[in-house]
Amino acid sequence: MKPLSGFKDLLPCDYARRRYLTEGWRDIARRYGFVEFDGPTLESLELYQKKNSGGEILTQLYQFTDRGDRPVALRPEMTPTLARIVAAHDREFAKPLRWFNVGNCFRYERQQRGRLREFLQLNCDLLGERSVTADAEIIALLIDQLRHFGFGPNDVTIRLSDRLAWHDFLEQFGIKKESTTEFLNIVDKMEREPQEKTEEKLAALEHSGLTVEKLREFMTSPTIPVLEPLLEELAARGLRDFIKPDLSIVRGLAYYTGVVFEAFALQGSLRAVAGGGRYDRLIHDLSNGAVTLPAVGFGMGDAVMLEFLKEVPLATQREEEFHAATSSCQVYLVIADEALRPQAVGLAQQLRDAGLRVAFSLASERVGKQFSAAENGGASFAVMIGDEWPQLKIKRLSTREEMSVPQGGLVEWLMDCSKG
Amino acid sequence: MKPLSGFKDLLPCDYARRRYLTEGWRDIARRYGFVEFDGPTLESLELYQKKNSGGEILTQLYQFTDRGDRPVALRPEMTPTLARIVAAHDREFAKPLRWFNVGNCFRYERQQRGRLREFLQLNCDLLGERSVTADAEIIALLIDQLRHFGFGPNDVTIRLSDRLAWHDFLEQFGIKKESTTEFLNIVDKMEREPQEKTEEKLAALEHSGLTVEKLREFMTSPTIPVLEPLLEELAARGLRDFIKPDLSIVRGLAYYTGVVFEAFALQGSLRAVAGGGRYDRLIHDLSNGAVTLPAVGFGMGDAVMLEFLKEVPLATQREEEFHAATSSCQVYLVIADEALRPQAVGLAQQLRDAGLRVAFSLASERVGKQFSAAENGGASFAVMIGDEWPQLKIKRLSTREEMSVPQGGLVEWLMDCSKG
Repeated sequence: MKPLSGFKDLLPCDYARRRYLTEGWRDIARRYGFVEFDGPTLESLELYQKKNSGGEILTQLYQFTDRGDRPVALRPEMTPTLARIVAAHDREFAKPLRWFNVGNCFRYERQQRGRLREFLQLNCDLLGERSVTADAEIIALLIDQLRHFGFGPNDVTIRLSDRLAWHDFLEQFGIKKESTTEFLNIVDKMEREPQEKTEEKLAALEHSGLTVEKLREFMTSPTIPVLEPLLEELAARGLRDFIKPDLSIVRGLAYYTGVVFEAFALQGSLRAVAGGGRYDRLIHDLSNGAVTLPAVGFGMGDAVMLEFLKEVPLATQREEEFHAATSSCQVYLVIADEALRPQAVGLAQQLRDAGLRVAFSLASERVGKQFSAAENGGASFAVMIGDEWPQLKIKRLSTREEMSVPQGGLVEWLMDCSKG
Repeated sequence: MKPLSGFKDLLPCDYARRRYLTEGWRDIARRYGFVEFDGPTLESLELYQKKNSGGEILTQLYQFTDRGDRPVALRPEMTPTLARIVAAHDREFAKPLRWFNVGNCFRYERQQRGRLREFLQLNCDLLGERSVTADAEIIALLIDQLRHFGFGPNDVTIRLSDRLAWHDFLEQFGIKKESTTEFLNIVDKMEREPQEKTEEKLAALEHSGLTVEKLREFMTSPTIPVLEPLLEELAARGLRDFIKPDLSIVRGLAYYTGVVFEAFALQGSLRAVAGGGRYDRLIHDLSNGAVTLPAVGFGMGDAVMLEFLKEVPLATQREEEFHAATSSCQVYLVIADEALRPQAVGLAQQLRDAGLRVAFSLASERVGKQFSAAENGGASFAVMIGDEWPQLKIKRLSTREEMSVPQGGLVEWLMDCSKG
């Protein structure tokens, strides 16, 4: 009776919450001129085995051989699919591309609280533009995704960093290009590990005199010159309050080449709610050199966001208001006289044609029970079809106010009310 | 560079078509008080191996063993998942349930034109109600799904039949209950097979005197008494024109127990665009007897519908109007003087906050090229930020009409226009 471990059934109330999130994501992405694309849920295994795609992900793949003997995998992330599609259709589109996707991904992760094996992710990517405005555009989009749901600068902050600053720093200490990823992984884990562990790891790298102290000094530098133009542009957009320059953010993935960032929750269970950065070489690498496209983007998962919505009062309130306004039924037809059922279903048809959400009892039922069903279904109005036909008694359920309307005028009357 | 055989990349234009369809589905389902649910894409293989689930489907499953040694399968249809969820949560919900789902399903089908291995399906199911009004409600919902997209009774017809009429007929000829499915499969294939083949198959069944002639006579009976109450109710809804009683419709699936129907395209490539029926025992069987719920529902796939939309002029026109109204960008900001970029991005932020879809060039670009980008992006208005700042020149791109508006009044001016 249960779903597989790590998978989730979405009852209508769960689905409504997820849809509140995904439709908000879509609305805001479109304001930025982003258009939605999608790819297959199942891809060739090979797509994920190319270099530069995430390392850990390969150990979590749902992979198998299909009935045609092809090695295949359920997508663990969208970026390889995006790169594949963009490379195949490169010449068809003027640049830059502003593409987004809301898609489910699959990872066989160790079971722990809040970690699902199938999850939904918003991915927004801006391809074909290297300018700082492109970085600002993506970060502003991420911030507006959060603002839309009711989160302010006291609820969430964008920790902003740049791999270029790190590369300059590494050069000073003679750390080789090949060791960059390994080094950044040390930085990435530094906050969560004892200092000795970090020292040990540093010692294993070939370098000239890099200590944990020097590392900390760099990470807490009061200014990060390379970020200045980006900060200015975010200030021009009125979004500077959301930004915290923070070199300790390096992001785990190997493929970032410039700016990297993380939206971090300051309320509730403190944690990252989204992350991204610039990846100017990934599309080139994933397309085997067929196409070169600079790119910047971010990803945001459903599970963390749905938790976060519960943790910030304004966000919770906005969500509740949304659900109240989109409840499953607007008008409930109470059939007080079964002989009038044909008239009632004809009326239902008219109301639905006008765009209203209408329900009624499908079998003969006491009037009291029908009114209860109207209340439980969240209806705004109950319309009673009975003795007074063709007059109808309408009850506004929130105020118990009653009115009488001729059946020919019902559609117009209700349409006026649902506008007001 | 290509997706797996039988799978499809959805470029933004393809995605927009699919979304036009899925959002239409959702809109109409909600008017009937239906609420959306979803289940996992991956399920335990066992769920599909229970009796009464479709037979052919078992040979087309994407099945494998996961990293935890569980036999699993990508869902080939939603009904088993629905039955599992409804059985597990039976006591939490007042009946009847009006549930729908728009979900992707997977079948390893032999490759042929228009057959995809991953496809999207609308499923609408009404559970917990045996009345004829429930049957009418589901069929009316199906018809309204078609009407919504611009299909009329000359474009599509609902072929309506009832398994009960067939059971009565079989009894007359002493055909045993166990042979019902086998017999209905003969009827299902009759239209497409030579008469001798049908005769041969009939001969193999144990019965008293059933001939192809008697079968045809029954199938073309002028009235089908068991359908009368349903036809009356559909007439009361004003939908009788869409219905063609037709006993030759029996539907392939074993689990139907009462009314069965098929929406059949009368234009373009004649074929079924949706189908369904009453299945009062399936939930009982799939839940191993834990829950008994009568049910009626239908399924409609994306591929056939998207083809059908292209084949009926009114439907095509409606779709085009929809896409024109939801083009990717409403306002394009033309930055004629790079020194004003900070002002421009500030303005973009204001317009987006107001809900408008806004784009602008992310790097310095000739004004002519920016206007082209505005046209290509489908923008309604180009707003020029240049010499006259803080006055702005606005160009309505459809008419080339030009106006001048102060920057402080731009949001209001555009919001008024986009309403009108």
